[in-house]
Amino acid sequence: MESHKSGESEYATLDLKREARCGFPEVIFAEGKTVDWMVGIINRLIGADQDVFATRVNEEQASTFARLYPQGIQDRIARTFWLPVVTERKTPVGDVLVITAGTSDLPVAREALNTASVMGVGTELIVDVGVAGLHRILSKVDRLRQADIVIVVAGMDGALPSVVGGLVDCAVIAVPTSIGYGAAFQGLAPLLTMLNACSAAVVTVNIDAGFKAGYTAARIVHRMYRSEKS
Amino acid sequence: MESHKSGESEYATLDLKREARCGFPEVIFAEGKTVDWMVGIINRLIGADQDVFATRVNEEQASTFARLYPQGIQDRIARTFWLPVVTERKTPVGDVLVITAGTSDLPVAREALNTASVMGVGTELIVDVGVAGLHRILSKVDRLRQADIVIVVAGMDGALPSVVGGLVDCAVIAVPTSIGYGAAFQGLAPLLTMLNACSAAVVTVNIDAGFKAGYTAARIVHRMYRSEKS
Amino acid sequence: MESHKSGESEYATLDLKREARCGFPEVIFAEGKTVDWMVGIINRLIGADQDVFATRVNEEQASTFARLYPQGIQDRIARTFWLPVVTERKTPVGDVLVITAGTSDLPVAREALNTASVMGVGTELIVDVGVAGLHRILSKVDRLRQADIVIVVAGMDGALPSVVGGLVDCAVIAVPTSIGYGAAFQGLAPLLTMLNACSAAVVTVNIDAGFKAGYTAARIVHRMYRSEKS
Amino acid sequence: MESHKSGESEYATLDLKREARCGFPEVIFAEGKTVDWMVGIINRLIGADQDVFATRVNEEQASTFARLYPQGIQDRIARTFWLPVVTERKTPVGDVLVITAGTSDLPVAREALNTASVMGVGTELIVDVGVAGLHRILSKVDRLRQADIVIVVAGMDGALPSVVGGLVDCAVIAVPTSIGYGAAFQGLAPLLTMLNACSAAVVTVNIDAGFKAGYTAARIVHRMYRSEKS
Amino acid sequence: MESHKSGESEYATLDLKREARCGFPEVIFAEGKTVDWMVGIINRLIGADQDVFATRVNEEQASTFARLYPQGIQDRIARTFWLPVVTERKTPVGDVLVITAGTSDLPVAREALNTASVMGVGTELIVDVGVAGLHRILSKVDRLRQADIVIVVAGMDGALPSVVGGLVDCAVIAVPTSIGYGAAFQGLAPLLTMLNACSAAVVTVNIDAGFKAGYTAARIVHRMYRSEKS
Amino acid sequence: MESHKSGESEYATLDLKREARCGFPEVIFAEGKTVDWMVGIINRLIGADQDVFATRVNEEQASTFARLYPQGIQDRIARTFWLPVVTERKTPVGDVLVITAGTSDLPVAREALNTASVMGVGTELIVDVGVAGLHRILSKVDRLRQADIVIVVAGMDGALPSVVGGLVDCAVIAVPTSIGYGAAFQGLAPLLTMLNACSAAVVTVNIDAGFKAGYTAARIVHRMYRSEKS
Amino acid sequence: MESHKSGESEYATLDLKREARCGFPEVIFAEGKTVDWMVGIINRLIGADQDVFATRVNEEQASTFARLYPQGIQDRIARTFWLPVVTERKTPVGDVLVITAGTSDLPVAREALNTASVMGVGTELIVDVGVAGLHRILSKVDRLRQADIVIVVAGMDGALPSVVGGLVDCAVIAVPTSIGYGAAFQGLAPLLTMLNACSAAVVTVNIDAGFKAGYTAARIVHRMYRSEKS
Amino acid sequence: MESHKSGESEYATLDLKREARCGFPEVIFAEGKTVDWMVGIINRLIGADQDVFATRVNEEQASTFARLYPQGIQDRIARTFWLPVVTERKTPVGDVLVITAGTSDLPVAREALNTASVMGVGTELIVDVGVAGLHRILSKVDRLRQADIVIVVAGMDGALPSVVGGLVDCAVIAVPTSIGYGAAFQGLAPLLTMLNACSAAVVTVNIDAGFKAGYTAARIVHRMYRSEKS
Repeated sequence: MESHKSGESEYATLDLKREARCGFPEVIFAEGKTVDWMVGIINRLIGADQDVFATRVNEEQASTFARLYPQGIQDRIARTFWLPVVTERKTPVGDVLVITAGTSDLPVAREALNTASVMGVGTELIVDVGVAGLHRILSKVDRLRQADIVIVVAGMDGALPSVVGGLVDCAVIAVPTSIGYGAAFQGLAPLLTMLNACSAAVVTVNIDAGFKAGYTAARIVHRMYRSEKS
Repeated sequence: MESHKSGESEYATLDLKREARCGFPEVIFAEGKTVDWMVGIINRLIGADQDVFATRVNEEQASTFARLYPQGIQDRIARTFWLPVVTERKTPVGDVLVITAGTSDLPVAREALNTASVMGVGTELIVDVGVAGLHRILSKVDRLRQADIVIVVAGMDGALPSVVGGLVDCAVIAVPTSIGYGAAFQGLAPLLTMLNACSAAVVTVNIDAGFKAGYTAARIVHRMYRSEKS
Repeated sequence: MESHKSGESEYATLDLKREARCGFPEVIFAEGKTVDWMVGIINRLIGADQDVFATRVNEEQASTFARLYPQGIQDRIARTFWLPVVTERKTPVGDVLVITAGTSDLPVAREALNTASVMGVGTELIVDVGVAGLHRILSKVDRLRQADIVIVVAGMDGALPSVVGGLVDCAVIAVPTSIGYGAAFQGLAPLLTMLNACSAAVVTVNIDAGFKAGYTAARIVHRMYRSEKS
Repeated sequence: MESHKSGESEYATLDLKREARCGFPEVIFAEGKTVDWMVGIINRLIGADQDVFATRVNEEQASTFARLYPQGIQDRIARTFWLPVVTERKTPVGDVLVITAGTSDLPVAREALNTASVMGVGTELIVDVGVAGLHRILSKVDRLRQADIVIVVAGMDGALPSVVGGLVDCAVIAVPTSIGYGAAFQGLAPLLTMLNACSAAVVTVNIDAGFKAGYTAARIVHRMYRSEKS
Repeated sequence: MESHKSGESEYATLDLKREARCGFPEVIFAEGKTVDWMVGIINRLIGADQDVFATRVNEEQASTFARLYPQGIQDRIARTFWLPVVTERKTPVGDVLVITAGTSDLPVAREALNTASVMGVGTELIVDVGVAGLHRILSKVDRLRQADIVIVVAGMDGALPSVVGGLVDCAVIAVPTSIGYGAAFQGLAPLLTMLNACSAAVVTVNIDAGFKAGYTAARIVHRMYRSEKS
Repeated sequence: MESHKSGESEYATLDLKREARCGFPEVIFAEGKTVDWMVGIINRLIGADQDVFATRVNEEQASTFARLYPQGIQDRIARTFWLPVVTERKTPVGDVLVITAGTSDLPVAREALNTASVMGVGTELIVDVGVAGLHRILSKVDRLRQADIVIVVAGMDGALPSVVGGLVDCAVIAVPTSIGYGAAFQGLAPLLTMLNACSAAVVTVNIDAGFKAGYTAARIVHRMYRSEKS
Repeated sequence: MESHKSGESEYATLDLKREARCGFPEVIFAEGKTVDWMVGIINRLIGADQDVFATRVNEEQASTFARLYPQGIQDRIARTFWLPVVTERKTPVGDVLVITAGTSDLPVAREALNTASVMGVGTELIVDVGVAGLHRILSKVDRLRQADIVIVVAGMDGALPSVVGGLVDCAVIAVPTSIGYGAAFQGLAPLLTMLNACSAAVVTVNIDAGFKAGYTAARIVHRMYRSEKS
Repeated sequence: MESHKSGESEYATLDLKREARCGFPEVIFAEGKTVDWMVGIINRLIGADQDVFATRVNEEQASTFARLYPQGIQDRIARTFWLPVVTERKTPVGDVLVITAGTSDLPVAREALNTASVMGVGTELIVDVGVAGLHRILSKVDRLRQADIVIVVAGMDGALPSVVGGLVDCAVIAVPTSIGYGAAFQGLAPLLTMLNACSAAVVTVNIDAGFKAGYTAARIVHRMYRSEKS
């Protein structure tokens, strides 16, 4: 068993050309990785002069990072870690609005917001405007209509994206969260609601996948604002 | 096999005391019953001086009833059959409002409405006011607030009951329908949405079960208006 | 990331007009909220002269509340917290009967009962009268028939609401619990049983959602007893 | 493709020793078999002097059997076919009681009853005594307590076996049926109810599997009444 | 909240007539009950001269029982507690054989075995004879054919009951366990296998429900051996 | 029943202001609507000078439309109906590329393509480039990188969007189809694959929901190309 | 809509290099394809001198093929179509044994067998040897042990592969079929059984996917027998 | 309870003839077994001169083994334990290539690799070559085409086996892992993807079942290389 050709140090094949191909370096999904693997990956990215962004960072990983990379920016609610290596930053472009139905959806919303932010996109967060008190979202309609993309984060019934989709003329990215009573089945209920949204401009990502929503929104916004277009 | 004690004519044990116990005679669920069984049951109810109300009536049953009981009232959209036997009818009491999210939810909504109507309750129907065009339901808020009970019928995302529950101070009975694209899974998606409604006053019945919503609403309304109360 | 416009202190958009619109102030769902967020929300409600009621309170939240709000009433079985701010209380109206199939359903039942109680409704609790020993529920039939609404809380097979629905002429609100062997699937089995209840006057709420049952029952009862009716 | 060693006539490997081993010959499950295959199998059983019993017989198979085996007994409600070959029949032993919750459960109940009957067991059928009108089953308690085994057939909420299990001291075999509204999910709901029955003496078979219930009941009864015991 | 009529001491409605009705006293399902509730229930049963048998006893309950009822018999693998109160015990009757597919199924098997034992039935256990090594079960065929009832306990593929059902002429009670890799889905896979057993004499109970299998087997055996029969 | 206020002619509440709010008139989902309802809705839209676009048109509806609106454009593979009323059409903007994994995904792909086309967006279709023959998609990489949005339509394993997402720097909208063997479960398998895509820029719509993908893509493209931006 | 660049004739991108890459030409999955598409694809394959093999051929396609390609070999039970174009055939190599649990599994088994046969592998079929009559499979053990690969096709409980896996030292490919009572859920039950097989050498393919089993078996066998090995 | 015939020491029926029958001794699945049971089983295997291989070894078991069997080889990432008893080892034959889509799939991949290795097969591991960066797998095509069997381990979308299956002419064994966001449902999503792989030569094992993949691969390879073939 000791003699097979791939030893314990071989645990990752980094995709160092992703920025060239997709516009942003590979992002590290920290779940299921040991602290040693994480540090190894981060050091190789730094060595390749690439910005480091990690999601789903657990407590043990976070405290190691705080020690090894004190300049890194940690958001313990969102469980993200951001270590910019490229020194020269561009001004953010575009307007991604992140909205939550409830307070408990905040960690997922901030993962979305942080992702879009580190990718160079302008962001803003509006919290706890679920449909049970409809005046809350209706008071924001003018703001909603300015956004280039709206990300709506909701657990329980997941009804907010359907409502937002009918109020704006941009696309809505819906993020179901695992918040709710038993028959929410850890996010299955809002996921199905969002996939079935009666507003046609709602697209959906995985449960609690704030990262994916922020990432896709940033890709869309960058294409909107790139100089060579039209 | 022919000699067992229960022959083919023994297919039903009618609950003729249900009106005394529950306030309304037994209603016949026509699905899975042969035409012969249905006619036998109806005749026994007529013989016992009980009003006849049947739901989920298929085409073959309906045309037989049209021939045998021409005085019966049939709603082929709702698939209900109503044959009042008790001659003296009371004035309807209360106010049950039935609302649908879309046009395709109409059969289920009318099953609910017909059920409450034959049970002696005042009813009204508002169609196609789903949340994708929020102004439609908002223009009805004053009417909604008058109702004793609101029944909300919706397929797809099933988001309308959550919105209605936050606009009124009465109870909302939500009815999921089997209308929608693939991931609605024949009504599972709106069912879960409704069970997880962020508005706390939403209770839910089975998929396409307009009958149950109308029946429960009628029970509640009759208790509200009975003279001996308080 | 530090510079986006919504900081950590912005975690909730309270719906301070809910009492005017729906008859009772917003209730706090404590699950997934930090202790700091909970205290912030409670203080804002107190500042707005609104009664505070919270459900799903965990141990850490409860001990903080005991220290900060010693006058609050805590039920650690039901995991509720009740802090009345409005000094003048009305006499309870109506009669909501809460029934459980087993002893283990008690926490959910008491959440329902406490919710209806704080909303000003008369309540009573009957425990452990499941259908395996049918004489237990049959000995209560006279009491059942007096109630304005019966809330039935059951795990495992969830069969009790079907039986109760056939014994009374009021509505039955069924609450499935997550109690049971493996194929109960954390409450899915009794949820499906209740949605499919052969008694037509059974409506259902989410798994373990005692709060929703109590809240809806209170809304119905308040409408029954409001002076301006008919 | 024509030359592989197994031709079209090779479609079955009959288990002609099953009677010796298990007490009753192999029963034919007709679903998914062509008429030709069925006739071939039946003729081989007749040639081996074995009684023929088939379940799930479709219309095309039934009319062929009526022509080829006019002496066979067909129950088109139960979809069974019975062709006794062994001339000398024993007197039925024991007492298997088959009960249904509703009228629509009758086909499955009769499959159970016919199966037990052809296996030489005494049977009786009680129809439409579901729990929504509890007096119906309570009026049968004395009869229930005489039975050696009670088979309870129910769709929708599947609550009847739990109630029956608490009224008798024999075993209850529960059969879920595919009858019901949407969230019954073709029998999944009553199946889960029965598996979770709060009465401990309830065992369950597959959805609509009247045959299995009748077959198991007959095995148990034969063991109860065999002379060599104790 | 403190003033509602049902206080904390009212947590159970014991069914003290179950032995008369069903042949054995109520058995206590310990899961979800506090130690105080358990002790209260046990003391009331002792006071009513009834034998005490509890299943799903956790560590905290077990150590309290060891202190308060040192004469009780505990099986910490099976998680059962047995406190016989009736002094005069009858000789066990009948022959219930409990078989497991693997070693890990042993706790569930012993719950079944202990249940049947305390109900006065003769029992025997055969462990780890799954179908991957078929000679293990084939070497037991003669023993299997003597049994009045065979209980087969299996996780993973749950295939053993199908094999056993074809080797014997008595009934087989199948118990799925929650043992296995991911797609066993905590016992769902063997549960479905058993419900679909191609051997017709297999009936099934809930996942890990050794108690139910033992209880039903005991009921069947007692009926087989009661003197007044035939 | 005949006297309730909403008669059969009241079946729809058209949202005539949707174009102003969302950029395009309401689209008609034809499934579950009678031919009469469809004609009534179309005539009202024509009367309001709004373009008519309908999806999920069945054969009966299509032949009626062919007779009544001969100028309408029907695509019977895609099941769409397009009746432009506004005479002056703008030049299409942007570049939406629709790709299918297999031939059988074509109807859904064309629904997406037709939707984007009638909304004024430039479109192109590439068919049958699934990952089992990877050179097919790799030969299109240059074309893929030009697109503003790529819509990927796939059944079975739904793996193509993950691959495409890693080759481009724009967003990918994934559409699962109900094509495949049994364990595709009518599109559930590719839906889950797409939600779990390892490429972060993949967002997903409902099963077979070509319309939603085309509609969202068109919204995004119109925002990219509107003159007032940046 | 007529002007988009991909017309109706563009419905497939054939992978004409698959034989070079994978050892066998692309096989056509006929489900969801029009007759015109099928004929177009077949003619292009013939034009490229490639053998044509199609699965899931429906009646309309089959009768067209019989007319256009009378030399083709059709198996209407298996729903396959085989049109060899390459004139020189090699002698079959290896030994793939296909076994079914029941008669109704035969169509799927023959799809597997035909697939392996046209790929140049030696095959044999044994039918109806399910585990309810264990002597049937035990009598074939010597034959089983000769095979290079055993394909086991089973519906209902899907238990046969577990048994076979313990009797041989080659790999077992298990194919679940959609045959069975309700809780087989169209093949889900045997699929889960096979994935959880307690015999470690069982691998599984999709429900009813005889083609995949035959195809994979043929790949393995060809590698076993290729001359250049070791 | 103490007197039943099977005591606590009887917890396993070892299958000591499995090597003769299946080519390799029984492997111990450690999950759900106490340390005492494990040690007892290991000692009996050693006593029978059989190699010991255990999977799913937990920390407590591992530290006991380290103390009792210091010569054993432990892989704490893979959770395997290997204690060779037979002194003379053969040279590994064949070439099994294990590939992972991501770093987090490594534990499952190493379970597969260790299993094949201890069974005497040549193995190699390639890590983190998922389809989001397609160049990673494409750079390995030549290596892939040499392998006798490729095992592909992937969580999330599980798309890698479909891609690999189209690049090689050997069989692919796909292993879904429980790694991923919410809607991966602990491995259900990649499991379904793999079962639906559009590449026909993909067969699938249980979630996280690296052992089964390695074991089946080894059986296939040993048959390829045994001297008596052809």
